[in-house]
Amino acid sequence: MTLTLLLLTLFTFSFSAIAPASSQCSITGLPLVRNISEIHQDNYGRPGLSHITVVGSLMHGMKEVEVWLQTFAPGSHTPIHRHSCEEVFIVLKGSGTLYLASDSNGKYPGKPEEHFVFANSTFHIPINDAHQLWNSNEQEDLQVLVVISRPPVKVFIYEDWSMPHSAAKLKFPYYWDEQCYQVPNNKKDEL
Amino acid sequence: MTLTLLLLTLFTFSFSAIAPASSQCSITGLPLVRNISEIHQDNYGRPGLSHITVVGSLMHGMKEVEVWLQTFAPGSHTPIHRHSCEEVFIVLKGSGTLYLASDSNGKYPGKPEEHFVFANSTFHIPINDAHQLWNSNEQEDLQVLVVISRPPVKVFIYEDWSMPHSAAKLKFPYYWDEQCYQVPNNKKDEL
Repeated sequence: MTLTLLLLTLFTFSFSAIAPASSQCSITGLPLVRNISEIHQDNYGRPGLSHITVVGSLMHGMKEVEVWLQTFAPGSHTPIHRHSCEEVFIVLKGSGTLYLASDSNGKYPGKPEEHFVFANSTFHIPINDAHQLWNSNEQEDLQVLVVISRPPVKVFIYEDWSMPHSAAKLKFPYYWDEQCYQVPNNKKDEL
Repeated sequence: MTLTLLLLTLFTFSFSAIAPASSQCSITGLPLVRNISEIHQDNYGRPGLSHITVVGSLMHGMKEVEVWLQTFAPGSHTPIHRHSCEEVFIVLKGSGTLYLASDSNGKYPGKPEEHFVFANSTFHIPINDAHQLWNSNEQEDLQVLVVISRPPVKVFIYEDWSMPHSAAKLKFPYYWDEQCYQVPNNKKDEL
């Protein structure tokens, strides 16, 4: 039994060590139909988050849409951020609070509106509006399906609601795209 | 009791008769967060189908993505069709069969591959590949979330797998877009 465990551990370790980053990033050889619960999930350094790229630009060659499955533990949240793509949320489980600063014409987001979101609800974020999603329910996880256009996503992050739009920091590639992102060939030529 | 029923019937009738098409098609005045179970659903003349446009081009002003929630009763299915947008499926309940004719370079789709799809699986349809989704499970409904790019969708429908691509019939606006579709102003000028 101990030997089996040891072998299993060794096998797991070897597999993690040997598996090249490219195996997770390949856009060829993937089965057409994939079990979502078998897709790689990670918190990307953000406690309380589970992120799965269900289908996306870097791993599946999507050019126009990308879909994420995200779970937020109670109290966890996204950063305050904006992006110039369309974004749709479908709440699968739990509930939470969406903070949305609709006036993207001001110098900074300003005090956001609060919206209660709940299982079986949907909402979409107007392009370039600063927003933040919180799991404000202490009792259960908040699980959402997220659809974005024009992947991979380019995110501008704010430290707080009074940070000027011009000071928000671009994070690109975003955390879950970092491993598989490759500078496009035409950009490489410019370097 | 009879009177109540009569009043209810009259009320329902009046409401259907009075409610202008535009109330369902308005892109203003909708709450940001919407309960999906309260969104209009219909079978659009297709027995066994329930279609809900969760968020879309015509009702919500989306320009890049659109999301549908569709339920197929046992034995029901989509037509054989193709479109030049990206399309992602997430299977929420049940199981079924995806028929996919991958060779869009031939003169007609030809014999499709069969793929088993199941709850918690995902798949996407390569652009312009002819395909058809069946609920081939006799025991339960098949429920899917569907994401498309470049809405509203332009669908080419085939009568069978040996119909030439060039003979497939364009259905635009598609059934669920008919009520709210308006010819764009610049197209009207051409008439």
